[in-house]
Amino acid sequence: MIKVGINGFGTIGKRVAEAVTLQDDMTVVGVVKTKPTYEVQGALSSDYAIFASTSEKIPFFEKQGIEVSGVTEDLVSMSDIIIDCTPGKLGVNNMEMYKNGNTKAIWQGGEKHAPIGVSFNALTNYNDSIGKDFVRVVSCNTTGLARTLHPISQNYGIDNVQAVMVRRSGDPKDSDRGPLNSIEPVLNVPSHHGPDVQTVISDLNIQTMAVKVPTTIMHVHCIIAKLNKKPNVKDVLSLWEATPRVNLLDGFLKNGETEIRNLPGTAEIMELARDLSYRRGDLNQIAVWRDGVHALDDKLYYYQAIHQESDVVPENIDAIRAMLNLESNNMRSIQKTNKALGIT
Amino acid sequence: MIKVGINGFGTIGKRVAEAVTLQDDMTVVGVVKTKPTYEVQGALSSDYAIFASTSEKIPFFEKQGIEVSGVTEDLVSMSDIIIDCTPGKLGVNNMEMYKNGNTKAIWQGGEKHAPIGVSFNALTNYNDSIGKDFVRVVSCNTTGLARTLHPISQNYGIDNVQAVMVRRSGDPKDSDRGPLNSIEPVLNVPSHHGPDVQTVISDLNIQTMAVKVPTTIMHVHCIIAKLNKKPNVKDVLSLWEATPRVNLLDGFLKNGETEIRNLPGTAEIMELARDLSYRRGDLNQIAVWRDGVHALDDKLYYYQAIHQESDVVPENIDAIRAMLNLESNNMRSIQKTNKALGIT
Amino acid sequence: MIKVGINGFGTIGKRVAEAVTLQDDMTVVGVVKTKPTYEVQGALSSDYAIFASTSEKIPFFEKQGIEVSGVTEDLVSMSDIIIDCTPGKLGVNNMEMYKNGNTKAIWQGGEKHAPIGVSFNALTNYNDSIGKDFVRVVSCNTTGLARTLHPISQNYGIDNVQAVMVRRSGDPKDSDRGPLNSIEPVLNVPSHHGPDVQTVISDLNIQTMAVKVPTTIMHVHCIIAKLNKKPNVKDVLSLWEATPRVNLLDGFLKNGETEIRNLPGTAEIMELARDLSYRRGDLNQIAVWRDGVHALDDKLYYYQAIHQESDVVPENIDAIRAMLNLESNNMRSIQKTNKALGIT
Amino acid sequence: MIKVGINGFGTIGKRVAEAVTLQDDMTVVGVVKTKPTYEVQGALSSDYAIFASTSEKIPFFEKQGIEVSGVTEDLVSMSDIIIDCTPGKLGVNNMEMYKNGNTKAIWQGGEKHAPIGVSFNALTNYNDSIGKDFVRVVSCNTTGLARTLHPISQNYGIDNVQAVMVRRSGDPKDSDRGPLNSIEPVLNVPSHHGPDVQTVISDLNIQTMAVKVPTTIMHVHCIIAKLNKKPNVKDVLSLWEATPRVNLLDGFLKNGETEIRNLPGTAEIMELARDLSYRRGDLNQIAVWRDGVHALDDKLYYYQAIHQESDVVPENIDAIRAMLNLESNNMRSIQKTNKALGIT
Repeated sequence: MIKVGINGFGTIGKRVAEAVTLQDDMTVVGVVKTKPTYEVQGALSSDYAIFASTSEKIPFFEKQGIEVSGVTEDLVSMSDIIIDCTPGKLGVNNMEMYKNGNTKAIWQGGEKHAPIGVSFNALTNYNDSIGKDFVRVVSCNTTGLARTLHPISQNYGIDNVQAVMVRRSGDPKDSDRGPLNSIEPVLNVPSHHGPDVQTVISDLNIQTMAVKVPTTIMHVHCIIAKLNKKPNVKDVLSLWEATPRVNLLDGFLKNGETEIRNLPGTAEIMELARDLSYRRGDLNQIAVWRDGVHALDDKLYYYQAIHQESDVVPENIDAIRAMLNLESNNMRSIQKTNKALGIT
Repeated sequence: MIKVGINGFGTIGKRVAEAVTLQDDMTVVGVVKTKPTYEVQGALSSDYAIFASTSEKIPFFEKQGIEVSGVTEDLVSMSDIIIDCTPGKLGVNNMEMYKNGNTKAIWQGGEKHAPIGVSFNALTNYNDSIGKDFVRVVSCNTTGLARTLHPISQNYGIDNVQAVMVRRSGDPKDSDRGPLNSIEPVLNVPSHHGPDVQTVISDLNIQTMAVKVPTTIMHVHCIIAKLNKKPNVKDVLSLWEATPRVNLLDGFLKNGETEIRNLPGTAEIMELARDLSYRRGDLNQIAVWRDGVHALDDKLYYYQAIHQESDVVPENIDAIRAMLNLESNNMRSIQKTNKALGIT
Repeated sequence: MIKVGINGFGTIGKRVAEAVTLQDDMTVVGVVKTKPTYEVQGALSSDYAIFASTSEKIPFFEKQGIEVSGVTEDLVSMSDIIIDCTPGKLGVNNMEMYKNGNTKAIWQGGEKHAPIGVSFNALTNYNDSIGKDFVRVVSCNTTGLARTLHPISQNYGIDNVQAVMVRRSGDPKDSDRGPLNSIEPVLNVPSHHGPDVQTVISDLNIQTMAVKVPTTIMHVHCIIAKLNKKPNVKDVLSLWEATPRVNLLDGFLKNGETEIRNLPGTAEIMELARDLSYRRGDLNQIAVWRDGVHALDDKLYYYQAIHQESDVVPENIDAIRAMLNLESNNMRSIQKTNKALGIT
Repeated sequence: MIKVGINGFGTIGKRVAEAVTLQDDMTVVGVVKTKPTYEVQGALSSDYAIFASTSEKIPFFEKQGIEVSGVTEDLVSMSDIIIDCTPGKLGVNNMEMYKNGNTKAIWQGGEKHAPIGVSFNALTNYNDSIGKDFVRVVSCNTTGLARTLHPISQNYGIDNVQAVMVRRSGDPKDSDRGPLNSIEPVLNVPSHHGPDVQTVISDLNIQTMAVKVPTTIMHVHCIIAKLNKKPNVKDVLSLWEATPRVNLLDGFLKNGETEIRNLPGTAEIMELARDLSYRRGDLNQIAVWRDGVHALDDKLYYYQAIHQESDVVPENIDAIRAMLNLESNNMRSIQKTNKALGIT
């Protein structure tokens, strides 16, 4: 039973913790929080041991009647592996602490690739992480691009990908995020997303642009892939049907002449996830609109929606298995994780 | 085992269906849908029999590969009671059909009180519905007002209540609702909410104003209650702690001089509901901010948040019990329902 | 010709500058900016001299090709009066500088009353500021409450006011403000707005609650005033018609049985201001919905909308006149200002 | 003096009316409204004669105290040309009426190209409309694409354009539009925008995708143009500087190591338009972010923002000139229009 410590109990941390508890080969030994805010109630209801980020934070926890099991270093020393879910660009500062604790660690996509050296996507480069000490699971957007582009690349060959990411501005709980009524482009081109895909699909020629819009639920990708041979939409849909963690959905339903709204936007997709009783209403899979896939000559056009809070969660589980040599075959790990999480 | 039919499988219908299946004295015999859209997938994953609203709708269902068990009248004749969750102001048109089927029925708060004749809140007037054929469960806002005002009224006596409802514009899935960037007052005063409370607390003197704002998660009530004797905040909090389906929450946490955000708004409250693994991330309870309760002379001021999608769900269950003489004591029904639904 | 310096060229500063230039008894001698961002283009197009906040900021301005006329202290020494429009709670730190420069100063409502000592509303307490050196123009919300409550208080007498302010979260340009999808109550009761009205209408008994909602255009006030004698709606409307800087608007228009949307929310009101060619689409007046005014016994209920970016602008002009003894009668100053600004 | 009638006084109609009055060779003879709502106040303040859409609408106008000069047919017969700004896809039904009145007409981009036969952009195909009776000014998005792609096409040659339009969901006044919290893709590819550009630049190879997002201010285009020779960013910027109705803006300003926000999003751009005292805060020009223009090999990447309410307004003026043989040279008409409207 692999002992997993969660450093940072926010959007990703709390989901990875829950996913770990649902596996039969790993367990959560504790979670680190910096403040005794409401998220701790969720941790307690799941019976996780609570660790304060530093010792000077302990009294605030105690004032709230919360029992603290130690500080971050204590959790590190108890864990076989730490999932670092601290805020982006700060997490890498913890590397020295993990080295000192002789503990493996996984970071999230908010960190840069270089200082960690290995980036991870279960479908595309699982093997690169086998036995490794330090690995970075790529971001929600990169994960989404990798999942749907991989089978296209394998079957058609990709000349180049041009993609525009329409990004939500904050998660549902991020009440300090704006803007309220504005669209903000990412003026650097390529945006970081394109190069980031290359950390898990090394030979992919991809450029990305991005804009930020005032929503909280899901990113939407508009993808234009120029292939080495003419794509066939039916065939492409079959490829994705066979790809784990990709879901095909109908935006509209047709009945004779009339067309009705079915899942036309991210709001309805998130509602479907709730209707299907997915934990927290999450959608770990990438949602591709079946009626949004089109082929024009050698170009494939499609739209996909990314549940930014949760698509990387099963990837973290698979990364643990790779790093700790629990499973050498990526598809077997993916299947095991999916089954435990109820991903169909 | 009481046989419950659900007519209308939207925001409320699907939640009541799920709540019924969690009880040991009632069961769902089928749900009516007008169109074969994505919500049907949720119904199928719960093994509910699907009924088309009318026979001419059946082919569209079949085209989508969905097996239909009949039409609304068929479900009515199979059911001991129908939960009518059709769109507001239309549901009452179905009364004749239910009478013809000799089937009891519950409507929701979108309907008016008069044509139905009995309105229901489990805490305040359960007995009025015992053995009745037709009952209306009051709206989410009315339910919220009734729950927190009832114990105040019982213990202090209320001279009058002035309340302002700050209403969300649409549910998360209502992607056709606006406005995007506007605040719209309900120019009629009192808004319908005040008089509506009087259908379940007959002697309450209450006037309400309301505004609509561009959010999808929770209504917020700003309540000013002039009491017959001076309120004491600590005592009021104790009363609510003893009241079922009311939750006290801290907007901010204090640590010495500093104050940190804990649950300052509706976004964080909804996140907490997800963190506590409540089904669909629902909050059946009314959330009252503990640090927002204040007494100034004979007036009590407080803020509460209403999860518009779900607070009436347990009320529907209790109403079924009252109408079918399953339980004559309201607190026993409330406790039984709460236990089954995991409401603490 | 009174020489006016503008310290801070944001939402309020740029509007006061423009309003000053439209008067015949005062002129803008310069404006202070901390950074050479786009707002400077507006200042240059109006031919204002630009001053950097401090000397170390000058190179950045020069790098952008913007000529700088000096720093804040230089502008202070050239001005008869400074309009301090620096960010709330910071402005009062500049008092010493203004004293040293022997220059009068006006602060905005983001500052507290106490350190400045005199608060200003042209309608209610103009005389308190005559000849004074340091004055604070009250906030947009306080100004709105003072304008509509004053004539009611004068004509009916007010026992008490309970008001709920539904506040926009950020101005249109404040792209760093959230929340995106949340309602946040101001948990302290009374919110600061109630006591703040008492700085300009000393004997008013008023308590306020407030919530923040995700819009950028206008605050809406829900006001419940208990009067000393029964109000008559027609009479109240006449009083407001005779009150400067208050506008009566129809939310809906009736034609026989049907009712159509006219100005049902803040979005349409702002559009009307643009349609009437008001500068920047501003509405300096308080908008009261005529069809939202109601009398129930001794209570008057009404809704009003506050253009947070601009309602205090004419107040700043009047305050300058009072402080510099340009006009001893408030109604004459109001009329002169209104005429120059095109307020009808 | 050309007599112009405006049929439909909404977002576009009221702006074209104002633009016409600012020219020296044309005048507004009246505007048609269907309902006596607030927009009429703007029309009256501009001294336009009001025409009811049909005679049965007249009493409602009279009830509101609004003098009506006749109905649509009356205005048609008085006008040399009608600007049809009725809601999209309905306007073309009026063609017969205009033919009967022997009156020329311009429709907007909500109509399809085919039934009208000639589409218009002042920069790209002015001559096609000279002397014509019926012309369609292309939509705001098409206009934006045409303006910035035309000089690139002329100077570099374009192999193909891939563009993603991130569209605002409603105009500021459209309080009935949603969605509140969703991103909705246009699942048909190419979206109508691409083919529509070909109605004014016939030989352009362009495919477009589009998504709708919950904002009210400006569309943003993400454009990827593969050119016939390698682009040079500096040169491209020079081309656009020389192109009328295109504005180059800086998203960020750099000062040594630090970078500050200048005009990072659509909110700030709209604020700049207000700061520069543009009528209604409109921006008739297409805003291109200077720091968002990039060249990667033979591809040019750029972002532009489109003020959907106003960019087509000067185009309507130019179209009038072409159709009525007032000016045979497009650049002279553009300059004349721009000067009158203050477009720099």
